Parts: sequence; C-alpha cells; structure tokens
Amino acid sequence: MSAGTIHGVGLGPGAADLMSVRADRLVRGARHLAFFRKRGRPGHARRLVEGMLRPDVVEYAMEYPVTTELAVSDPAYNAQLAAFYAESAAHLEALARAGEEVVVLCEGDPFFYGSFMHLHARLAGAVPVAVVPGVTGMSGAWTASGAPITWGDDVLTVATATLPEAELTRRVSDTDALVVMKVGRHLPKLRRALAAAGREGAAWLVEHAAMPEQRVVPLAEAGETAPYFAIVLVHGQGRRP
Amino acid sequence: MSAGTIHGVGLGPGAADLMSVRADRLVRGARHLAFFRKRGRPGHARRLVEGMLRPDVVEYAMEYPVTTELAVSDPAYNAQLAAFYAESAAHLEALARAGEEVVVLCEGDPFFYGSFMHLHARLAGAVPVAVVPGVTGMSGAWTASGAPITWGDDVLTVATATLPEAELTRRVSDTDALVVMKVGRHLPKLRRALAAAGREGAAWLVEHAAMPEQRVVPLAEAGETAPYFAIVLVHGQGRRP
Repeated sequence: MSAGTIHGVGLGPGAADLMSVRADRLVRGARHLAFFRKRGRPGHARRLVEGMLRPDVVEYAMEYPVTTELAVSDPAYNAQLAAFYAESAAHLEALARAGEEVVVLCEGDPFFYGSFMHLHARLAGAVPVAVVPGVTGMSGAWTASGAPITWGDDVLTVATATLPEAELTRRVSDTDALVVMKVGRHLPKLRRALAAAGREGAAWLVEHAAMPEQRVVPLAEAGETAPYFAIVLVHGQGRRP
Repeated sequence: MSAGTIHGVGLGPGAADLMSVRADRLVRGARHLAFFRKRGRPGHARRLVEGMLRPDVVEYAMEYPVTTELAVSDPAYNAQLAAFYAESAAHLEALARAGEEVVVLCEGDPFFYGSFMHLHARLAGAVPVAVVPGVTGMSGAWTASGAPITWGDDVLTVATATLPEAELTRRVSDTDALVVMKVGRHLPKLRRALAAAGREGAAWLVEHAAMPEQRVVPLAEAGETAPYFAIVLVHGQGRRP
C-alpha cells in the first residue's frame, strides 16, 4: 500500500471565499481533517470551514498545551511544545502510512509564521507532504486598509511585536513599509517604538481582517490592547507615476 | 442608474486553482475584463484565465507604453506611464459610470507591488472599487522551495533587486529572512550583495513559482540572468520547538 499525503492547506485571512480553489476542493473532500486550537475553544481554522465538510469526516483537534505560566525562554516551554508537535506529527504520520489523505487546516499561509511548519519539519521525508499556499493575514490587513502596502522600490519589513522595544524601534525607523504581526498585549510597546521613530501618525491597526468584525483604525485612535492576531501597518510611499 | 464596481482581483502566483474562490467567481462571471500586458504579448494574467471566461466577455487590454529607451529616473518615463494609467483609468471609470461591473486581473496580490495600484489611486473615490487579495508571488516562491520562510520572531525583509548594490548589501545583512523581488537582469548585482553579506550559500532562486515550468535552485547553481519575476529567498532560522 502506498502512503497517503498530508496536505498543509492555507485558508487565507479569514473569509471562507478567500481560500484558494485548490484549498476549497481539498477541504470539501477531506476524509481526515486536522487543525490546531486552544483548549476549550472551537479554533479559528475549524470555524472557518464550518458547513463545508463531508458528513463522514474524521476530525483530529490538536490542542496547544497550556503554557501561560511559562516564559517563552524557559526550556520547559520548549519541551512541552516539542512533545506536543511530536505527538501530533506521529498521529498524522500513522494515518498517512495507513494510506489515508489528511488535510491540515492552516490560517493564512502555512509557511509564513504558521504552526503547521512544526509538523512539516517532523513529517517531510517520512511521508508525502504537500503545501497549498494561502492569502496571508497581512494581505488581508492591507486590503482592509484600502491602500497599497508597497510601491516601486519600497522596502517592506515584517516583524513581530514580541521583539524587544529597542529592536522594534530600529526596525520601524529603517524601512519604507511596515507590517507588525502578533500585536496583542505588545501594543503599548509597539506604540512607543513607532512614536520614537516618528511614525505613529502613519500607522494603522487592523483587527479581524476579512471577517465580519473587521476593524481598521488609525493607531492613534486605538486602545491599549488588541487581539493577538491584530496587525499594525505603515504604508510605503514609493514611486508612483 | 447606480455605478458599477471595478474589482481589482488577485490571481495568485500563477496556477489557476491558487486564485481564491471569490476571484474565480468574479473572473467566470465577468462581462467586462481588463488586464495589463506588454505590447505584442498575450499577458501572464490573461493567459492564466484562458478557458474560464464568458463567451460574451468584453476584453480591454492595457498595453504598457514601450519605455525601454528611457531611464526610470527620466521625467519622460514617468510622464508616459502617468498618461497610460490615466487613459486606462478613464476607460474603466466610463464603464463603471455606465453601470457595468469590471474585473481587472492582477497577478499575485493587487496591493503588493502591483500595477493595479496606479488605477486604484485614480479611481478610488470616483467610482466604487473593490479589491480581492491574492496569494503573493513570494508565497508561491517559498512554497515551491519546500521550506518555511519565517519562524518564531524572525524579521522578514522584502526588497526589490532594483535597489543600489550598497543598499541591497545592507538589507541582506540586517535581516533573518529575505525575499528579493524583480530579480531579472539585476541577478549579478544581487549575487554580489549576498556574497558581501556572507549569505550567498543560503540563497535560493525561484523561477515561475506554481507554474508547470517552476524551477528552484540554490543561487550558487543559477546562471547569470533570471526572468524579471524570479524571486530570491533566504529562509529564516528562528525559534522552532
């Protein structure tokens, strides 16, 4: 028997009709469907495909271990996550070895800051793995903002708000266009970095891009916190005939 | 009579089934279809939707003025392009004012280094304009490379190979992950910049991502030139449990 393929399928920024035709076909045809979620939550990715699934679909929810009491730099944090990804990958690998095709739901694009990457690193080479790229959350965000992100020869810097403040300030100062991911509770730090770089007035906060609750506001008018998946943008101002 | 909407529709990196479900529906339903192309060429975007169109579709090819004899910095270059975009936008605006819906084909994502942005700048506010984000060419490229582009807190820098060599070297030196767009005839300069930064050995050249002629090679094994739309990647090596 030949092994089945594990498909890492990008779902795009959050509207079901922004997934690709290839992703749509794979999701609707999936007999085995896996997805990440926080314990006790339905999961963003799973919610997005509600109503699209085969009646006989077999679902496998991969629930992140609860690590809120651990610092990211704590070796115990890493060890818990590593065990979680190893266990999840082993389950999917067993399905593939039994000849099953498996669809793994991925928010945004699987190879851009995605959890699927940690499965891919453990599965590639062992069983067939295929990746379907998706519209990134940041594309959803700049589309929601109503203005292009990069023009002409603009340099775009993509950074996470988890960086130290000094490093954020340096990055914000030294780019034409800017995307900051994973904003959440780091918003006050990011705001200070933008202000230090003289760019707070040009920054936009985008929450829930492409979803019904989408919200786009100048950063100056935003509050003190934002959802984890909120994105901050500064649009490039490059050459435009 | 109410005005029709001009839809800037992202087609993704180059495989028809990587456009979004929304894009697919708009393209198949389009009565008026506009697209950019070089004079005397069918046009990448138009070729991608071959076989998907209504039999009664009305097509409008927007042919870039021939500017090869002009430097980008020459005011005449800018003036010719500005006139071209103004004329194209006026044509589309007239259709929308006559109540027609118009689909404008956009390779990749419309708001990410796209020609549609120059129409959007002229049309937004005058008639209804809607944008459908697409999978970017760079997502197609890193998916083709078989490895994630960013992990953990990696900083991603996106630059164009049109930048001066010293600036390219500086950008290549000061980032975790790297995407360089518009490589084409700038490949030797980019290679020198990567070598100066000590990163030539980690760089990949991706040509025609997601298309049948897709080609992924270590930059060291690439030739002296590449297609205009070729992309060079250096993958991030950030935190991975």
